[in-house]
Amino acid sequence: MDKPKSQHITKFETKVNRVEREALNGHKGVTVWFTGLSASGKSTIAVLVDQMLAARGARSYVLDGDNIRHGLNRDLGFSPADRAENIRRIGEVARLFTQAGIINLTAFISPYREDRDRNRSIQDPGDFVEVFVDSPLEVCERRDPRGLYRLAREGKIPEFTGISAPYEPPLHPDLVLYTDRESEEESAATLVAYLEEHGYLWGGAARGKERAAAGKRASGR
Amino acid sequence: MDKPKSQHITKFETKVNRVEREALNGHKGVTVWFTGLSASGKSTIAVLVDQMLAARGARSYVLDGDNIRHGLNRDLGFSPADRAENIRRIGEVARLFTQAGIINLTAFISPYREDRDRNRSIQDPGDFVEVFVDSPLEVCERRDPRGLYRLAREGKIPEFTGISAPYEPPLHPDLVLYTDRESEEESAATLVAYLEEHGYLWGGAARGKERAAAGKRASGR
Repeated sequence: MDKPKSQHITKFETKVNRVEREALNGHKGVTVWFTGLSASGKSTIAVLVDQMLAARGARSYVLDGDNIRHGLNRDLGFSPADRAENIRRIGEVARLFTQAGIINLTAFISPYREDRDRNRSIQDPGDFVEVFVDSPLEVCERRDPRGLYRLAREGKIPEFTGISAPYEPPLHPDLVLYTDRESEEESAATLVAYLEEHGYLWGGAARGKERAAAGKRASGR
Repeated sequence: MDKPKSQHITKFETKVNRVEREALNGHKGVTVWFTGLSASGKSTIAVLVDQMLAARGARSYVLDGDNIRHGLNRDLGFSPADRAENIRRIGEVARLFTQAGIINLTAFISPYREDRDRNRSIQDPGDFVEVFVDSPLEVCERRDPRGLYRLAREGKIPEFTGISAPYEPPLHPDLVLYTDRESEEESAATLVAYLEEHGYLWGGAARGKERAAAGKRASGR
């Protein structure tokens, strides 16, 4: 990595380390980076996984267009440079969540390999799980839940991924979800199983539910 | 707030809401925004509070120069515009951590009222606790653990807060810590007591320790 512009900044070790946080949480911190066409199912699956993880007491959070484009990246448009910066910043925020021990799920088209690979490269090995939500363009376009493909075909949205801008599928994704052949619930379950099998998640559902109940009692809510 | 440049982005409700996350955690998500001169004790207190919170099973995370300036904001320098953008982005990341139910502690000089007030304004009422780490310039300059004040006096660091650039103390901070009169440990304890008294933290230390022990057993670490 090139050096940051900042000078006179001392490396500062936070004394609560990741192993402690992860032991407390019952799971590792990890970025689950979804990539795929618009309407392929990224956000829906991310939210379903978030729910499943919360139900078992895991700490998770979804980063998506809503909480990023209206906030951190509200100054960015859709020029090539701004798109790259958009994905770069999301990758950096994802890294912070991972360091904080959170299972963070990012739901962005992120069409360029270079941008995704850079976001993997800033994290420690194993901390970045690339999930390719693979659904053919014609299926996504048929779904078109927000009418974006129609607008893109009419030329009303320029540089729309799959129509007037390229999508570069991952060459070596950690997991592929075929959302044209299975339900979003099935895809979500596949992903949670992947996290268990690869040692990101341990502990059982029962403890999570007990914790949630204990928290509700204590808070009086 | 002005409208974001982004178009065609639908508001997307993540289905795990904050009340559920907070019940699970035994505390609210909140941004604890430290402000004060260089060497006033911000980072040290933030790390101590982080440790105290982790020991009782709370989810916390420190955002500081290390993990922000070397990552998310590595493209920013120290021009007035870049300094403002630095603090803006940190405020947005802090908001995301708050929404994720994490007690996030930000340790930055953040010398301008306008920048801090904007970061408060993007969060819900009560979600932003401004902590003024109040230590006189002469005390901070005498400490000078990294020799920055000396370099600033020698003109080797331009626009250094307190020497060649202004510091605007908060007009209505939520909490003031007088680090020239008490130890950093005392200040940290004062802050944790504040979080308890104001309903940000509930539940006891015992449960947190039990959880940590359970997590360690399950993970085999």
